[in-house]
Amino acid sequence: MKVQAAQPVRVHPPTVVIVGVGLIGGSVGLAVRSRILSGRVIGVGRSSASLAEAKRCGAITETSTDLSRAAAEADIIVVATGVAAIPELLEQIDKAVRPGTLITDAGSTKATIVAAWEKRRRWRRGRFVGGHPIAGSHRRGPAAAAADLFTGRVTVVTPSKNTPAADAEEVGGFWASLGSTVFMMTPREHDFMLAATSHAPHVLAAAIAASTPPESRQLTAGGWRDTTRIAAGDPNLWADILLDNVTAVAKALSRIARNAEKILEALEKNDRKKLVSLLKRAKEDRDAVGS
Amino acid sequence: MKVQAAQPVRVHPPTVVIVGVGLIGGSVGLAVRSRILSGRVIGVGRSSASLAEAKRCGAITETSTDLSRAAAEADIIVVATGVAAIPELLEQIDKAVRPGTLITDAGSTKATIVAAWEKRRRWRRGRFVGGHPIAGSHRRGPAAAAADLFTGRVTVVTPSKNTPAADAEEVGGFWASLGSTVFMMTPREHDFMLAATSHAPHVLAAAIAASTPPESRQLTAGGWRDTTRIAAGDPNLWADILLDNVTAVAKALSRIARNAEKILEALEKNDRKKLVSLLKRAKEDRDAVGS
Repeated sequence: MKVQAAQPVRVHPPTVVIVGVGLIGGSVGLAVRSRILSGRVIGVGRSSASLAEAKRCGAITETSTDLSRAAAEADIIVVATGVAAIPELLEQIDKAVRPGTLITDAGSTKATIVAAWEKRRRWRRGRFVGGHPIAGSHRRGPAAAAADLFTGRVTVVTPSKNTPAADAEEVGGFWASLGSTVFMMTPREHDFMLAATSHAPHVLAAAIAASTPPESRQLTAGGWRDTTRIAAGDPNLWADILLDNVTAVAKALSRIARNAEKILEALEKNDRKKLVSLLKRAKEDRDAVGS
Repeated sequence: MKVQAAQPVRVHPPTVVIVGVGLIGGSVGLAVRSRILSGRVIGVGRSSASLAEAKRCGAITETSTDLSRAAAEADIIVVATGVAAIPELLEQIDKAVRPGTLITDAGSTKATIVAAWEKRRRWRRGRFVGGHPIAGSHRRGPAAAAADLFTGRVTVVTPSKNTPAADAEEVGGFWASLGSTVFMMTPREHDFMLAATSHAPHVLAAAIAASTPPESRQLTAGGWRDTTRIAAGDPNLWADILLDNVTAVAKALSRIARNAEKILEALEKNDRKKLVSLLKRAKEDRDAVGS
């Protein structure tokens, strides 16, 4: 046997498949292309207009409307559609992938999605670990996508108790390579926290917007616009997110209602000292996060 | 009698006195100085540090801690302090001004302030008409002031039923000359509308901030930050605003609570159609205002 001189290992650049090329999917594509050596980024979607736009923006290198065919070629697959569609897409994907293919998603809720995958874990071909890049916007579509959408933002990765640590690490590493800070937690922990930081505020932003008499709109300034901005989000996407996290959202809303009632009570009792102390506490909580 | 050649009329540039040189007062000064021929803009305040800063920023040309003396020299006075201090300041000012001096304020509530002035209307030396430039910010102090803070924004001017139309016109004209669009309405109408567009949203922003578990803060993104931004406002200033508009704030909060409960009910009934329709309506209301 002839010993050859050592050759540098040629690392095959991964083929990335992105299912759903909206704001998040498009940004994954842009971030992958600007940060990772990747020959191919295949965008899969139902709307050929969105796919074409994503390609024009440079978010993907190829488009496909055949999920199974694209999945079979993937080294890693990111599902970035609305949450309601994800469980069924994971089933389709898993039937088509080569064994061991890494799969993650970008859904805003995690418990249902992970549970659906876990139910058939022992028959799976792919290695799925849920993800949620917390970097949304009320804007939509690939035109709003940005290569740095995840930079400095948090992505939560949600292994189940059966997920091999190596799979969680690999999926975490993928999201980290797009620029985000990765936190690992259980799907339930994620959903509980997001109810407080995103879902319940969304309900209230919508309620404030819907409660403002049209004739008062001309008297709105930055405060109202900030407070209600997320109410401009897509009603169908948000309906599915909220419906997938009802219990935690209801709890978060009741915590907020209790705190609002405390403020109102201090107001109605003309208890300025109490009122200032409640507003101070809220300001400290707000200031702790930064602008 | 010797007839002289016609001379151009030399218009005396008005002396403007600004009481309270924070964000709003400082911006009034900058706007006056950039838009109106004015030789003197006198800033009056308790804090000589704020006054010095306002002068350094170019918002005022002179500083004074003697309200009566400054008021006696004014052609127009703008009171831009917190709302709780305004009625008493108007009393002091009115005792010192030359008869006919124009006075306005920038308070976020109007009914109490205007009523306090009106109670002694027949003995007044000055001509007061309440104002509210709807151009706030969670930022504070003269360093945050801007010459264009009022540009394209609305200022509400709130004559009482006894205010001479000419006075309302003059005060409206002053605010318009700073770049804002002026709406006239009664003090009560103003307070009712602002409860919906500003005061009740403030209470909810504070409640959301205070209800977010500290361990969840790292999972906040733009949505939470937008929704809670105004909770970073000054607790003392806001306590006084809210306390001065309790009835309208309570009504606005209960309207918002009813709309939030409708959304929660649709969620708990898993009624996606109803939920989407509620979120759609909220989105339309939000979109009607613009980003």
